Amino acid sequence: MAVAAPEDANGSMVVPFHGPDQAGLTVRPQAWSTFLALDLLAETDADGLRRLMRLLSDDASRLTSGEPALADSEPELATRPARLTVTFGFGPAFVARAGGEVPAWLGPLPAFAVDRLEEAWSHGDLLLEIASDDPTTLAHATRMLLKDTRSFATVRWVQRGFRRAHGSMANGTTMRNLFGQVDGTVNPGPASADFDGLVRIRDGGWLTGGTSLVVRRTAMDLEGWDRLDRPGREASVGRRLDTGAPLTGGGEHTEPDFEARDAVGFPVIAEFSHVRRARSDDPRERFYRRGYNYDDTPAPGQISNSGLIFACFQADPLTQFVPVQQRLSDLDLLNEWTTPIGSAVFAIPPGCDEGGFVGQTLLID
Amino acid sequence: MAVAAPEDANGSMVVPFHGPDQAGLTVRPQAWSTFLALDLLAETDADGLRRLMRLLSDDASRLTSGEPALADSEPELATRPARLTVTFGFGPAFVARAGGEVPAWLGPLPAFAVDRLEEAWSHGDLLLEIASDDPTTLAHATRMLLKDTRSFATVRWVQRGFRRAHGSMANGTTMRNLFGQVDGTVNPGPASADFDGLVRIRDGGWLTGGTSLVVRRTAMDLEGWDRLDRPGREASVGRRLDTGAPLTGGGEHTEPDFEARDAVGFPVIAEFSHVRRARSDDPRERFYRRGYNYDDTPAPGQISNSGLIFACFQADPLTQFVPVQQRLSDLDLLNEWTTPIGSAVFAIPPGCDEGGFVGQTLLID
Repeated sequence: MAVAAPEDANGSMVVPFHGPDQAGLTVRPQAWSTFLALDLLAETDADGLRRLMRLLSDDASRLTSGEPALADSEPELATRPARLTVTFGFGPAFVARAGGEVPAWLGPLPAFAVDRLEEAWSHGDLLLEIASDDPTTLAHATRMLLKDTRSFATVRWVQRGFRRAHGSMANGTTMRNLFGQVDGTVNPGPASADFDGLVRIRDGGWLTGGTSLVVRRTAMDLEGWDRLDRPGREASVGRRLDTGAPLTGGGEHTEPDFEARDAVGFPVIAEFSHVRRARSDDPRERFYRRGYNYDDTPAPGQISNSGLIFACFQADPLTQFVPVQQRLSDLDLLNEWTTPIGSAVFAIPPGCDEGGFVGQTLLID
Repeated sequence: MAVAAPEDANGSMVVPFHGPDQAGLTVRPQAWSTFLALDLLAETDADGLRRLMRLLSDDASRLTSGEPALADSEPELATRPARLTVTFGFGPAFVARAGGEVPAWLGPLPAFAVDRLEEAWSHGDLLLEIASDDPTTLAHATRMLLKDTRSFATVRWVQRGFRRAHGSMANGTTMRNLFGQVDGTVNPGPASADFDGLVRIRDGGWLTGGTSLVVRRTAMDLEGWDRLDRPGREASVGRRLDTGAPLTGGGEHTEPDFEARDAVGFPVIAEFSHVRRARSDDPRERFYRRGYNYDDTPAPGQISNSGLIFACFQADPLTQFVPVQQRLSDLDLLNEWTTPIGSAVFAIPPGCDEGGFVGQTLLID
């Protein structure tokens, strides 16, 4: 057994709020993340948006550093940030109301044949992604920030997700989803040389240096998946379930050999497999995934209500994410057990310096 | 800042399933706990209950030791137990169907004037409390155990709660609830000399060595609480919010001085305060609390849906818990902001040795 951790090692860890990026883009994913979409009230104008984003940025900078919010009603709950980050995203109505230019990609994605989207899990004017390794901190920060929004907006949806807890698994281990799959092996994250080119927006006016976030709630039919045997599961993914290695051999990070054939001449990695369908020859058709599992209360008669809060960052969803999703929608054996039930796209503005606020490039005085 | 923890220090920690007690009674509370009540199917007879408890005990012993369940469909999700425990409790219908003697206290509690109980959060034939420091482990174990129950029972309610994460706070720190109160200072837990006498059932037939568990879902009106100033909050609790010390001075664990008066002759700790109303002169009117915070999705127009999964162990709820709850129901300023919306009582049988199963003293062949 490993050595016990210092008891409060993680609670005091701070991820700086201020900087060129919003912290949620570059931080190693925390154990818990709440994605929260708001609808703006009809009377919230550009001036209101400016006040709102000042308030939110100010309280986010306090809470993420382990300090109480400005009007914190429970300051004792704010003392253990545990890598708390707060990340803001704007929907098309937010940008339009601010009088800014709405990027062509900022709106509903094209419809995919596999979609069974529910309004209650889709769209939204303002996104807050609040993430921490500690659930009490997360609950408190969420409430303090929602109090700031009360005169400006109402809650549209809340999606709560998780990965492994701090201390459960070595940092840097690729997460597994609730199908047990290693999920996110090929992923141009912040440490990748491709990250800047794929994720950051250049020459995007007020969004320059920012990015976009696609959030898709994907229900996973765990009961149906149960009826599939292990070889069937591995064939549908194109990877081994134990190591995440491609079926053509090696380790998790070995390149799949899509040309390899078995003894009778069939491809070792099937045409319909997820790993093959998700892969593009076009190096632009990539994005940075930073998703979370969800496990909600089952409907009557059921024993699970689980899935993935799929979340990915890219400079342009239409040219990077959509072609991949279209290929997966057209053919991907995993579609049998996964159903997109929510979809939203947000503009993620760059970060701000101390004294500034997120969205200031859009909401200039 | 504290030294960083070894990265996987906590994931490998195992709490033994086998032993004289069910592990959830004596383990230091984990970060996450799911309380899950099941209704038995009409056709589940004593023989079915025996098979069910054998199955559940066997899989619980595997999963808590970091091994896959017997028919585990995602064995890779079972490898990081992170102090996973599974604790079983029986409602009156379970015991009656097993042909055992139903203790007088095993049934709905007397009605309290403050109650606004909802059936959807109350009662149940079989309780599973599944707790771990890791949320992925918890989700996986929950599903594996619910698969075992599928031919015998259906899910009645699920309550998901949290405390601080492993590594967020020094072990042994009393938890705070979402009002920010230190919650559980006077608590005869497993390390207390009073624990055995207060919690364990003697001469209880099949329940000898076991205990009882009261689970009450208590909604907390955080928005109303917000409108109360700090002195008002401290007066209603009778303790300081920062340290948890009684208003008559000292530290968290100093005894309150209920005789102390202020300069104008009023009691320093008011008659209506929670700490005074919860305290009994009868040393039997105590129990071991092991509750969890909850924070669910707010209703439309609201910004929170939070509260406490109040959970307490005692040898006899009617003589230990009920008098205290009755006093609090009659008068406790905190009632203004707290509402019991669910209530259930379960018999918690003793643990079992390897090869045995929980409930074997009831379900003897």
